Amino acid sequence: MAAVENGDRTTRADLVITGCTALVHGEDGRIDFADDAAVVVRGGVVDAVTTAAAVADLPATERIDGSGQVAMPGLVNCHTHSPMVALRGIAEDMPVEEWFNDWIWPIESNLTDSVVELGALLACAEMIRGGVTTFADHYFAMDKVAAAVTHSGLRANLGWAYFSGQGTEGRERSLDFALSANGSADGRITTSLAPHAPYTVDDEDLAATAELAREHGLPVHLHAAENKAQTDHSLERYGRTPIEVLERAGLLDTDLLIAHGTGITGRDLPVLRRATGRVAVATAPRGYLKFGWDTTPVRALAGLGVPVGLATDGAASNNTLDVWESMTLTVLVQKSTERDPAWLTARQALDHATAQSARAVGLGDRIGALAPGRRADVILVDLTGPHTRPVHDVAATLVHSARSSDVRTTVVDGKVLMRDRRLLTLDVPAVAAELDRELPALIRRRDGRRIQEYNA
Amino acid sequence: MAAVENGDRTTRADLVITGCTALVHGEDGRIDFADDAAVVVRGGVVDAVTTAAAVADLPATERIDGSGQVAMPGLVNCHTHSPMVALRGIAEDMPVEEWFNDWIWPIESNLTDSVVELGALLACAEMIRGGVTTFADHYFAMDKVAAAVTHSGLRANLGWAYFSGQGTEGRERSLDFALSANGSADGRITTSLAPHAPYTVDDEDLAATAELAREHGLPVHLHAAENKAQTDHSLERYGRTPIEVLERAGLLDTDLLIAHGTGITGRDLPVLRRATGRVAVATAPRGYLKFGWDTTPVRALAGLGVPVGLATDGAASNNTLDVWESMTLTVLVQKSTERDPAWLTARQALDHATAQSARAVGLGDRIGALAPGRRADVILVDLTGPHTRPVHDVAATLVHSARSSDVRTTVVDGKVLMRDRRLLTLDVPAVAAELDRELPALIRRRDGRRIQEYNA
Repeated sequence: MAAVENGDRTTRADLVITGCTALVHGEDGRIDFADDAAVVVRGGVVDAVTTAAAVADLPATERIDGSGQVAMPGLVNCHTHSPMVALRGIAEDMPVEEWFNDWIWPIESNLTDSVVELGALLACAEMIRGGVTTFADHYFAMDKVAAAVTHSGLRANLGWAYFSGQGTEGRERSLDFALSANGSADGRITTSLAPHAPYTVDDEDLAATAELAREHGLPVHLHAAENKAQTDHSLERYGRTPIEVLERAGLLDTDLLIAHGTGITGRDLPVLRRATGRVAVATAPRGYLKFGWDTTPVRALAGLGVPVGLATDGAASNNTLDVWESMTLTVLVQKSTERDPAWLTARQALDHATAQSARAVGLGDRIGALAPGRRADVILVDLTGPHTRPVHDVAATLVHSARSSDVRTTVVDGKVLMRDRRLLTLDVPAVAAELDRELPALIRRRDGRRIQEYNA
Repeated sequence: MAAVENGDRTTRADLVITGCTALVHGEDGRIDFADDAAVVVRGGVVDAVTTAAAVADLPATERIDGSGQVAMPGLVNCHTHSPMVALRGIAEDMPVEEWFNDWIWPIESNLTDSVVELGALLACAEMIRGGVTTFADHYFAMDKVAAAVTHSGLRANLGWAYFSGQGTEGRERSLDFALSANGSADGRITTSLAPHAPYTVDDEDLAATAELAREHGLPVHLHAAENKAQTDHSLERYGRTPIEVLERAGLLDTDLLIAHGTGITGRDLPVLRRATGRVAVATAPRGYLKFGWDTTPVRALAGLGVPVGLATDGAASNNTLDVWESMTLTVLVQKSTERDPAWLTARQALDHATAQSARAVGLGDRIGALAPGRRADVILVDLTGPHTRPVHDVAATLVHSARSSDVRTTVVDGKVLMRDRRLLTLDVPAVAAELDRELPALIRRRDGRRIQEYNA
């Protein structure tokens, strides 16, 4: 229980959460649980994780009784397209080619700033209620997503997506946004360059992106090796896997977040091993099951020390932005895929959900742990429901029995965004009603109009 | 929308649910949704599914406003061991041999009536909150489970488990219970004979069970072909698959509910095709993922017309009794296993959750549909949360975005067991606290004491 420290015991705290069980990381990174604990927040930062007794008399602007609850770092959605909640459930039970070419990309040719902002607001509401405190978003009209993030109180890493088909304009807009939005929302917003994928962004454009990333110290967030078919096609066409394409473009020497990677093969492992950048992978297992793909090779990546963060992808394929479900599914699918019930334990899953996800979005030293000096992004998870009793092992209860709906309180930068399941920054009925009014114009598909062609 | 009928428009109703979207089955069994609908309940039975307008002036003892909610048949947990919630999360991340031999069966040698009843009460609470209205239970001390069912207000099919190692006493107790408890709790309890499995119950005992089933008109509920290894071992030892063992014992000519069946092979399909009994399979996909097993061959069984009901197994392996999750996982795992994103659509999943599950537990004509004459086992699912907006397709929203925690109201036999998430028949804190006091004696494992040896 090395991570519990005492902090300042006299100065008024902004927020004290007391009487909870705290998920803490030991000095070796091992996850442990402290009972009868308290979390003290000052200036948006965790000042101490200590005992409930130690804070009994501590003056505090706000106190939350955490009894029966686990305090843990907020979840991180390492790869999503938040405005796509507008398309949740519209195109089901079909292969990815049909999903992209007949539904998503035709519909996205109708996107408006208003749809993007309303979608992002609805997504923020869903994520706050699901215990997500940070998300990495990859989409269009990202100034509107930034506005939603600012309003919601969440933390986010935002990247404005581009295809080579847009000429240099797409890349330039992504850079302009990354430079101008970085550090906004009181520092809660960070940014990435966001090329779509090696199959929609050409080698020259990828190399130019790597150059810009180095020049401006920006991370890069893209899709790559989404499935085995993409890897096979890439090998047929170019003689290189998507990961080798990224290496050749210099992107593995940047801080790179790769979404999905279910098509990462044995041949890619030495390539990833020699990467000099902070390379991470985001896994969103629900969609892979739906499309009948393989899943992210988490065990092989763990062997390389590549962090694997948890993600949901967009709700148009994933149907939810429920990172808790992604955590549970990652465990289940990894055990099943490796045919090894001892692999990916509940504690390993919590490491993916906390430290590894924080590193994946470039915030490994700011979030991902309840520890002095980290931003105060905290959630309280209620374990008193009949479905989580009795508790023989807190880690197993969290990963296998608890649900995102058991998150009762969500705090970002020390500010309470949800208290006892009630959202404090967002008005869901109003946002959802306004979005509903935009839907008929959004979902009207017109012959030949689509933003891209899927042929990967 | 053939299933909507008007019913009696003047006599006082016991319960009217109005303003909801109703999940109804057409004459061909196809699932459809009726907007602005109302469900009228009289005498514990659905009297009509009609329009909200038609019941505006109908006198009713109780009215529930269902706006923004879907009214649908309550879920059926087709195979569980409800008291095992006491062991939720105690033995994780290990193969099934170790799980049975080193944990579950040693611990079960300490079972008491009190643990069984408290566990069953806690399980009932979890299931009511998760929208389950009927469960098929397979365990010991089933008189105590019957008491919990009676108290909770749920519907259940109960079977007292036995091994051949108990001599004839086990089988006789199972029969006595099946005969005495059948029809109790105002008819909400039905019963089955419950041999454990072909690897713990010998051929003679299985044949005697089939004989008793025929003589007394009782269904049989057992485990069989739980995994491929069991099938392989059975072939090595006896030259027959577990399904062929059941056929030889005469059990395929009874009303038989087979739990799991992930080890059902191509060789078993003609055997199942020539079965003369009502044979059904219960699938509980979560545990198969955890143990690294194959999954139930739902597509092959569908081809034979064998109903596949949804289940959770016991919480000691499955961690939850969340049948909603079983529905979602069945879809995801089936698409993945078949490598076919078009297979097992949301509507097919709802058919498994309603009509097929009802048939699997022998109640195909009494529950599983909102239709006049069926028992009034109804749940209301809230679709107004941010994670379920917008709704492009109600079936997809239910299966892929909604959660068991979105069930707001649970009704069995016309009686409200949960209203707005509040349990009306059970006191969870009291039950959980009492169970906690029993745990130290329960989980103490003593050398050599176990109720069985797993060697299948």
